[in-house]
Amino acid sequence: MSTQDVVKLRTMTGAGMLDCKKALDEAGGDLDKAAEILRKKGQAKAAKKSAERETKEGIVHSYIHANGKVGVLLELLCETDFVARNEVFKELAHDLAMQIAATDPLYIKPEDVPEEVIKKEKSMIKEEMADESKPADVLDKIVEGKMAKYYEEICLMNQLFIKDEDKTIADLINDKIASLGEKIEVGRFCRFSI
Amino acid sequence: MSTQDVVKLRTMTGAGMLDCKKALDEAGGDLDKAAEILRKKGQAKAAKKSAERETKEGIVHSYIHANGKVGVLLELLCETDFVARNEVFKELAHDLAMQIAATDPLYIKPEDVPEEVIKKEKSMIKEEMADESKPADVLDKIVEGKMAKYYEEICLMNQLFIKDEDKTIADLINDKIASLGEKIEVGRFCRFSI
Repeated sequence: MSTQDVVKLRTMTGAGMLDCKKALDEAGGDLDKAAEILRKKGQAKAAKKSAERETKEGIVHSYIHANGKVGVLLELLCETDFVARNEVFKELAHDLAMQIAATDPLYIKPEDVPEEVIKKEKSMIKEEMADESKPADVLDKIVEGKMAKYYEEICLMNQLFIKDEDKTIADLINDKIASLGEKIEVGRFCRFSI
Repeated sequence: MSTQDVVKLRTMTGAGMLDCKKALDEAGGDLDKAAEILRKKGQAKAAKKSAERETKEGIVHSYIHANGKVGVLLELLCETDFVARNEVFKELAHDLAMQIAATDPLYIKPEDVPEEVIKKEKSMIKEEMADESKPADVLDKIVEGKMAKYYEEICLMNQLFIKDEDKTIADLINDKIASLGEKIEVGRFCRFSI
C-alpha cells in the first residue's frame, strides 16, 4: 500500500489519514472498495450522531428559479454556528433547495406523511391489482415495493439526488454529516410555484 | 393653473396628464390637495379592480436577512406577466419580503385570522378590563380599538410600512395598483427564523 494511495483516498473521501490507511488495508489495496468501506463507516457514524445530538444552529437559504415563477425557502440545521458558516454546508443547502424546486416533494421523510395519506395510497394500489389473483403475501410485497416508489416521489429524503442519481438525498446529507462531523437535518421547507 | 404644475403633479403621483389637470381644477390649484384627490381616486379604482379581476401571474421573491438566520419567501400576484416583469412590481415584492422578515406577521389580512383566535383575543381583552366598571357600549368601543391594534400587529396588510410609517401595507399596495393599473395581491408568504 503506497502513501500516494492513502492521499488519493483521502482526497476522494475527505476522511482522516489513519482511517484511509485502515480502509485500504481492509480492502486489500483496492481504492474503490476502500472508499466504499469509508462511506459505510461514515454513514454508520452519521446515523449515531443523528440519534444523539441536537441541532440548534443552521441557515435559512432560498432558491428562486430563473424565471421567478418557482421559489424555495429551506431551513437547514446543524449543531454549531461554525458549521453553519462552512462553505460545504452552504452548498448542501443550495443543492437541497434546488432539488426541492425541481422535484416538488411534499414531505421531508416518510414519518411525516399523515396516516390517512398512506392508507389511501395503499388502498389505491390494492384496487389497481384487484383483478390479478395473487396470493396475499405476494400482494403485500408488491404494495411494499410500490409504497417505496411513492415515498421516493413525495419525500425529500427518499428522492434520488438530481445532480447524482446514484444516491438519495438521505445519502447526500449523511455524506456531509460524515465529512463535517456534525448532525445535519432539514428543519422545514416551503415551495411556491405560480 | 400652469402646465408646470400639471407636470409636477404627474411626477408626484404617476397619474395621467388629464387626471392631473382635473385634480388641480378640483383642488383650486393646490398641489398637495390635488395629489390627495388623485390618491383617493386611485385607491377607489384600486378597490374596484381588486374586486373584479383575477391575478394569475406574478413572481416568487425571497429575502434572506444578512446573517442567514431569517428568511422569507413571498408570492406576489398580478394580472399579466408584463407587470410581473416590471421593476416597480419587483421592488414592491422586495419591500414586502423585508417587511415580513422584520415584523413577523402571522396572517395576510384580518379575514384570514381564524375565528377561535379572534374569540380568544377578545375574551383576554375583556378579562383585562373586568375590574373597570364601564358601560357595555364603552367596553365594546375599547375592545374594537384594541382589536384594530392587534390586527396591526399580526396582519401584514394592517401593519405600518417599516420604510414609511405614514402608510399601511394595504396603502402601499393600493398605491402600486393605482400606478401600475393592475390588481396586485399577496398570494402566500412563509418566514423561517433560527
